[in-house]
Amino acid sequence: MAAESTQMKKFTLNDLQKHSTRDDCWIVVHQKVWDITSFIDEHPGGSAVILKYAGKNATSLYDAVHAPDIITEELPKDKLMGLLEDVSPADGDIQAAPEPKPVLKPVVKLAEDNSIVEDDGIPPLGGILSCKDFEEAASKALTPKTWAFYSSAATDLVTHRQNKEVTRRIMLRPRILRNVSKVDMKTTMLGNPVSAPFFISPAAMARLAHPDGELALSRASSNQGIIQTISSNASFPMRTIMGVAPPEYPFFFQLYVNSDRKKTEEILKTARNLGVKAILVTVDAPVPGKREADERAAQEGTVRSAISGGESSKDKKGSGFGRLMAQYIDKSLNWDDLAWLRRMCGDMKIVLKGVQTADDVETAAAYGCDAVVLSNHGGRSLDGSQPSILVLLEVRRRFPQLLEKLEVYVDGGFERGSDILKALALGARAVGIGRPYMYSLVYGQEGAEHLTEILKDELETSMRLAGLSSLNEITPRLVNTRDVDHLVDTGDDSSIVRSKL
Amino acid sequence: MAAESTQMKKFTLNDLQKHSTRDDCWIVVHQKVWDITSFIDEHPGGSAVILKYAGKNATSLYDAVHAPDIITEELPKDKLMGLLEDVSPADGDIQAAPEPKPVLKPVVKLAEDNSIVEDDGIPPLGGILSCKDFEEAASKALTPKTWAFYSSAATDLVTHRQNKEVTRRIMLRPRILRNVSKVDMKTTMLGNPVSAPFFISPAAMARLAHPDGELALSRASSNQGIIQTISSNASFPMRTIMGVAPPEYPFFFQLYVNSDRKKTEEILKTARNLGVKAILVTVDAPVPGKREADERAAQEGTVRSAISGGESSKDKKGSGFGRLMAQYIDKSLNWDDLAWLRRMCGDMKIVLKGVQTADDVETAAAYGCDAVVLSNHGGRSLDGSQPSILVLLEVRRRFPQLLEKLEVYVDGGFERGSDILKALALGARAVGIGRPYMYSLVYGQEGAEHLTEILKDELETSMRLAGLSSLNEITPRLVNTRDVDHLVDTGDDSSIVRSKL
Amino acid sequence: MAAESTQMKKFTLNDLQKHSTRDDCWIVVHQKVWDITSFIDEHPGGSAVILKYAGKNATSLYDAVHAPDIITEELPKDKLMGLLEDVSPADGDIQAAPEPKPVLKPVVKLAEDNSIVEDDGIPPLGGILSCKDFEEAASKALTPKTWAFYSSAATDLVTHRQNKEVTRRIMLRPRILRNVSKVDMKTTMLGNPVSAPFFISPAAMARLAHPDGELALSRASSNQGIIQTISSNASFPMRTIMGVAPPEYPFFFQLYVNSDRKKTEEILKTARNLGVKAILVTVDAPVPGKREADERAAQEGTVRSAISGGESSKDKKGSGFGRLMAQYIDKSLNWDDLAWLRRMCGDMKIVLKGVQTADDVETAAAYGCDAVVLSNHGGRSLDGSQPSILVLLEVRRRFPQLLEKLEVYVDGGFERGSDILKALALGARAVGIGRPYMYSLVYGQEGAEHLTEILKDELETSMRLAGLSSLNEITPRLVNTRDVDHLVDTGDDSSIVRSKL
Amino acid sequence: MAAESTQMKKFTLNDLQKHSTRDDCWIVVHQKVWDITSFIDEHPGGSAVILKYAGKNATSLYDAVHAPDIITEELPKDKLMGLLEDVSPADGDIQAAPEPKPVLKPVVKLAEDNSIVEDDGIPPLGGILSCKDFEEAASKALTPKTWAFYSSAATDLVTHRQNKEVTRRIMLRPRILRNVSKVDMKTTMLGNPVSAPFFISPAAMARLAHPDGELALSRASSNQGIIQTISSNASFPMRTIMGVAPPEYPFFFQLYVNSDRKKTEEILKTARNLGVKAILVTVDAPVPGKREADERAAQEGTVRSAISGGESSKDKKGSGFGRLMAQYIDKSLNWDDLAWLRRMCGDMKIVLKGVQTADDVETAAAYGCDAVVLSNHGGRSLDGSQPSILVLLEVRRRFPQLLEKLEVYVDGGFERGSDILKALALGARAVGIGRPYMYSLVYGQEGAEHLTEILKDELETSMRLAGLSSLNEITPRLVNTRDVDHLVDTGDDSSIVRSKL
Repeated sequence: MAAESTQMKKFTLNDLQKHSTRDDCWIVVHQKVWDITSFIDEHPGGSAVILKYAGKNATSLYDAVHAPDIITEELPKDKLMGLLEDVSPADGDIQAAPEPKPVLKPVVKLAEDNSIVEDDGIPPLGGILSCKDFEEAASKALTPKTWAFYSSAATDLVTHRQNKEVTRRIMLRPRILRNVSKVDMKTTMLGNPVSAPFFISPAAMARLAHPDGELALSRASSNQGIIQTISSNASFPMRTIMGVAPPEYPFFFQLYVNSDRKKTEEILKTARNLGVKAILVTVDAPVPGKREADERAAQEGTVRSAISGGESSKDKKGSGFGRLMAQYIDKSLNWDDLAWLRRMCGDMKIVLKGVQTADDVETAAAYGCDAVVLSNHGGRSLDGSQPSILVLLEVRRRFPQLLEKLEVYVDGGFERGSDILKALALGARAVGIGRPYMYSLVYGQEGAEHLTEILKDELETSMRLAGLSSLNEITPRLVNTRDVDHLVDTGDDSSIVRSKL
Repeated sequence: MAAESTQMKKFTLNDLQKHSTRDDCWIVVHQKVWDITSFIDEHPGGSAVILKYAGKNATSLYDAVHAPDIITEELPKDKLMGLLEDVSPADGDIQAAPEPKPVLKPVVKLAEDNSIVEDDGIPPLGGILSCKDFEEAASKALTPKTWAFYSSAATDLVTHRQNKEVTRRIMLRPRILRNVSKVDMKTTMLGNPVSAPFFISPAAMARLAHPDGELALSRASSNQGIIQTISSNASFPMRTIMGVAPPEYPFFFQLYVNSDRKKTEEILKTARNLGVKAILVTVDAPVPGKREADERAAQEGTVRSAISGGESSKDKKGSGFGRLMAQYIDKSLNWDDLAWLRRMCGDMKIVLKGVQTADDVETAAAYGCDAVVLSNHGGRSLDGSQPSILVLLEVRRRFPQLLEKLEVYVDGGFERGSDILKALALGARAVGIGRPYMYSLVYGQEGAEHLTEILKDELETSMRLAGLSSLNEITPRLVNTRDVDHLVDTGDDSSIVRSKL
Repeated sequence: MAAESTQMKKFTLNDLQKHSTRDDCWIVVHQKVWDITSFIDEHPGGSAVILKYAGKNATSLYDAVHAPDIITEELPKDKLMGLLEDVSPADGDIQAAPEPKPVLKPVVKLAEDNSIVEDDGIPPLGGILSCKDFEEAASKALTPKTWAFYSSAATDLVTHRQNKEVTRRIMLRPRILRNVSKVDMKTTMLGNPVSAPFFISPAAMARLAHPDGELALSRASSNQGIIQTISSNASFPMRTIMGVAPPEYPFFFQLYVNSDRKKTEEILKTARNLGVKAILVTVDAPVPGKREADERAAQEGTVRSAISGGESSKDKKGSGFGRLMAQYIDKSLNWDDLAWLRRMCGDMKIVLKGVQTADDVETAAAYGCDAVVLSNHGGRSLDGSQPSILVLLEVRRRFPQLLEKLEVYVDGGFERGSDILKALALGARAVGIGRPYMYSLVYGQEGAEHLTEILKDELETSMRLAGLSSLNEITPRLVNTRDVDHLVDTGDDSSIVRSKL
Repeated sequence: MAAESTQMKKFTLNDLQKHSTRDDCWIVVHQKVWDITSFIDEHPGGSAVILKYAGKNATSLYDAVHAPDIITEELPKDKLMGLLEDVSPADGDIQAAPEPKPVLKPVVKLAEDNSIVEDDGIPPLGGILSCKDFEEAASKALTPKTWAFYSSAATDLVTHRQNKEVTRRIMLRPRILRNVSKVDMKTTMLGNPVSAPFFISPAAMARLAHPDGELALSRASSNQGIIQTISSNASFPMRTIMGVAPPEYPFFFQLYVNSDRKKTEEILKTARNLGVKAILVTVDAPVPGKREADERAAQEGTVRSAISGGESSKDKKGSGFGRLMAQYIDKSLNWDDLAWLRRMCGDMKIVLKGVQTADDVETAAAYGCDAVVLSNHGGRSLDGSQPSILVLLEVRRRFPQLLEKLEVYVDGGFERGSDILKALALGARAVGIGRPYMYSLVYGQEGAEHLTEILKDELETSMRLAGLSSLNEITPRLVNTRDVDHLVDTGDDSSIVRSKL
């Protein structure tokens, strides 16, 4: 960069002001001067916002809504006109009042003397013992909007609560006097070895929680030997995210199919080229659920995904981040599209994420899917839908053979090592952890690693206390599900078809 | 009116005072001077209150308890003596201390700057996202008495709570990968096409919530393509209510049968002539339930229905609006009266509202009723009675064939699009929405339309997330009722008749 | 009294002081001068307290712990020495600091302007709408000790709460379109006609709540046509209580059998002579339950029953009123004693109060008992015992024929007309109301009458809303007990006898 | 001691300072001067802490973490060099700032005037009526760390809560009219006669609650005729604890098997020699559960058991007392080790403590164990494991014959006499009481005796109210378990073995 800088032409702010019209529009981002005249109408955030900064330094605004690399990736090299001279970027920044503010409060410093902790109520990372602790810290550290986006769920939060409560109502039956001096919790997911039977569920725009966003997750998960599922609505490009992990490290990618199928095909091509191992197609959200807290929490400015291009700002219904980001999703996607998807995926495995009935697990198997994630989008899609663990019980009771045919994952409300153990006892191969990882990002990469260690530690302790030294020893007899057995749909309902209306 | 005014004789307040006795009694209402001498003894509110205003301007009091048109409709034209001259009505008003106050707080202005909102805690309509939001706004905007009347339920509120809770305990089973790009929620109710499978349940005296009262509901429902059920105890005359909707727009009418059957026959004649489509005879309230909050909230002055003539003021038991309005209801009404009712109704359909057991649905079908509303009067009649959704489950389990024979509606505690979906899955044709529409009237017609749009939006979203593109695709398999199945009366009880007492 | 006074000798306080020793001991009660020398050692409250007042005016203390008539009944006429002269009783009273204080706060005046109400938070009687209202008023009006004694229940209050909750979980199935213009709720209890199917359950020492104590209940119940059960531990003599009702008015009497059987035989003889109709032998309290709130609430002085002679003050375990009053109860009472009891009762019916299993109802029938009260002493005996309504369900399911053989009453947690209706539907003949009547005594006789009217009104309304015009029409189909059916002991347990310890 | 003192050499603090190096190290404890040079490296608390006090008076620190006798027992007599002269121990004490503080607040004085009670909110012992009262007093009287250690349970406290709640959901079926004038609650435990069917469950480091620690329990239990189970992690040596009870008084000993089996063999040898009657091998804690409150509550200094040598201070995971004390436990212990254990135990009975499934009760019987304690370590091991009472129900339903084959004890959440009665009805021979005894130690020996009396009193009352005069009369029909029957694992699950991972 130093070398590059010296070779480039230098400009002053005065120079820039000569290029401040729609027909001749330069802007500065991180001291680099770009000619974006031809790009104005293609800007996903609209042309208006760009024209405000015509001939000016747009660094602050850019940083608030874009990943660092994105301008370099999207503009041709010849549009880089040179460097802004002799001006600290901060000075030249426009501090327009109603413009987007930084979306994250100052990151917590883990100083020995804990002085910051006493100011904002956020504990040092060493004081975090559980998922719940991360949640509480996040509720204080995140901006109200970001907190609303991550923590909210659909309408009355019934499914959101039930995810956790039904899991808690399942009891464990620990066996005694087994040699548990060594515990092995390694397994594989679609052939990829992992250090523990859980993975990071996809969630949009991790950069709202920390400047490192998905990069922090990527570094943490590869260090810890677990799999990260990259969201279609990630804040960084896929290549950037995977680039911070060791070469060949396995990644999964979560896919929202775009109404403009070409765009999806491009994304899948990128994924294939980058060596993504599996595509988790989200099937529980043809439209987004109604998340009222998200709608109510006002958002300023525009946020945009570096992968899908999905954006959120505000409309007459509110500021629903989840709703607005989802507008490109193809509501017509159906079983027949799986053939197309299979073609596009090449060697990548296909996983349906958001399966909510045993019937649809059966169909997925019939269509040759490699795995499913039993999920209700963390209670964010259709409120009142069955808690995930209950669907797992339904699968086990009605179609136990399916558990041999494809891999079954589950997510929604899992927060403890013992929760994971219960899912495994019922036949899940691995458990997805969503919100807790988002919350852990308050502490960046270090937070995500600490969370992973907590979950591993809890799982190991739970296995020992249950008399288990490896995952192979887990059987359904490990759990007592009597308290929830009556809730399981058994499929033997007299399927009285409702009369024509 | 201007033309009319100029032709009329002018009076001063002094002139009026000459006509202030029982034998010569004039009053002023909205500047018009009426001779009501011959009407004193027929006044449904009693003669005493009229005589207080003999020879005076009674506009304020009149407005507080009557619909605007009613005096013009009930008095012959020759009793209009002229106009009050040179006096602003407000000046001449008697501001007697203990007299009725206006029943509605100032209506919220939806100004952009929201300044009023910050004063009274009532959000602008744009900030209302759900039925619950309307309820909260109403609890602040309505007078304590009106709030008590609408929100109260019988004794310990058990059924009131259960209506909602049992519905919430029913889970949904969303199916995935269906093409839901288009969603059709149109249906018919007794042959009348409607834009969505819900309707406005009847509730008394909407004018307590907003000066436009039932007129606002009428305009909103006809704009939105749904059916309004006019209450027997409406604050406006039937003709006035139906008059603000387009000609031929379908209306239902809720009927309390009067102990004086002649009065009921007149009302039914009016309904027939006005083209009402169906009569919903209330059968769950031969006497009103005991609503303690309603009894406790003091009411000043008298309120009177423009249709039934039912009135409420206060007696030694308290100020129970619901109880006092109901005094004219015929407690002897029984199955044998249906023949008479059928004769009186002509082409109008007959619907029993307040059916609370599957047994009585069966009887209703045997008596040739066209439809039933499974209802417990919103928990306002017999506390402890089964929640409505449970009765629907009972019908579906014991007599599924009845769902083909007559239309089954249900109301009580339905507040979400997903609640409506559950009822449809169990065989209901449409769902009645009661209190939420009353609460929406805080914002007048606009509020009622906004509520309708919210419910439609929620239902559409829920259908999409459930994998449904039309109501025809709904089957009982959409719901998992296991959590409440054990509560359903199955009718196989050994019906041990209790020994003679 | 005036005549009597003039004939009697007059004394001054100075005169009295000459008779202030154990061997010559006079005291003044209500201006009358008594020689109680020979009675000192028989005083149930001990001699010490009497000797403190030797030669003094003891009116205040006497009033605090005794019924007005008791001294006249227990002392021979010749011990009345004369009258205290020229001294207002209040002046001569000893206001010894640590002596018992009056146990009741000033009675509420039902003044129109409600000024007292605003001072102490106790509403005027007209504002009391329900049992719960009475309870709240009593919690404010009674002394802490009296409140603790009446409201407390055993240890963790589980049965106390369950009594109410299980009743509430039973649902009603109202039938529609029945002619309910007239409602008849008359019935009989052991052949005695009553105006409604409920009665006053016995409770000790009603005078703690109001100076009129059981007399107020007696006047109220006879005015209202319901039966009062006089407690063994009543504060007035049986004759006094029955004396304020019309001649021949039916009364029941609750019996604790004394370890000194002679005393019980005397009491039963009195009851027979007074024309008591039935004896309710308490069988659920061979020892009192552990009522911690009662133990904790300190009591000053001694309280003594005018019938049983049971007393309460304080010991090292605490101030448990219920525990201390119960010390005379015979823990050895058993089925074999019923023959003796039958002999002693003559024509009086025998009712076992406190039956807690269907098995014991069966045994009671085999022993020829005329009725039983399914009761757990209002949750005051063994905490954890089954709620009363559940025992009724057990009887109905296991031994329905017993409901024809003897009358089955039930009490514990019944507070609404609809609660009573549920019990009747399950086979009870009548329902006992306990604590609410004690609470109603805050307002004296008027309170007890108002409570009776409330319950009748609620029952009448509930019957109408349920489609019932007489108790004869009630059948088990009136209720839906599905929510609690699984709780019913069905007696088919494999009765594995536990191995010898 | 006086005689001994006079014979011993006297030293001053100046003398001591000459022996303050690692090679020549003296310290003072309770005025006695010890040469501990050769012991420095064997000190279980590490050498560092000792060297800080080289040449100084270490009495305060010693008292905070050791039992009084331990130094005398562990050091040879010839290391006692003499006495510290002319200095009150308090003067010479080092009051180093960050050193351990006394772990107990001032003990409550039970003065008649209760003045202290009003200062700290801790009631006098006479005001304690129940286990719950003891708990509340302890929450105020104990240091935060000690309170956290005793009261905490694993992760989300689900099992901890369920222990109590499921017991409470079991109902009692009291029988009436039985002669209960005399009640006998005596029984035997493994042949040892006891006065009541409950015993003191083991808990670590009772000295944290009171200076007398386990000695207070020992005196109280022997006075009261019940059995104390001495913890492996007791604060006093076994000999000292047993020494304060009468000779031959029966004791049980709880055993954690040490990874260094030799140490365990030594402990068992000591137990045998001392006449311990039974060894309760803890089998539910190969590793400690995750008790977050315990981890969070900071502990200063080091605490060490006088029996196991287990120690706790603090590490990077937190201050988890339970976790740190447990580090010596052998995670490899398994069924095959029972043969070794049997050899080591000689005549002592073997009891498995922490059995959590009926299956393992069956195995324990097959391995010839004499008894089991159904326990989940008070909810402190694996959160989510089945409540103890439920395991008892499982045993009774699946393997009732086992109840004849070995003695079955149960602990976890039992706090009332009626709780104990329920366990006996289901087949338990006796019930362990854990935390309540720890809490009672706030009042020392007197507290533990008072607790025992409360439990006996409650059990006696409960038996009388249930119609029982001896434990022999208890049968399963005493309880109604319908509310929890559905929760019982019945073992008939199709044991689908999970596919290889």
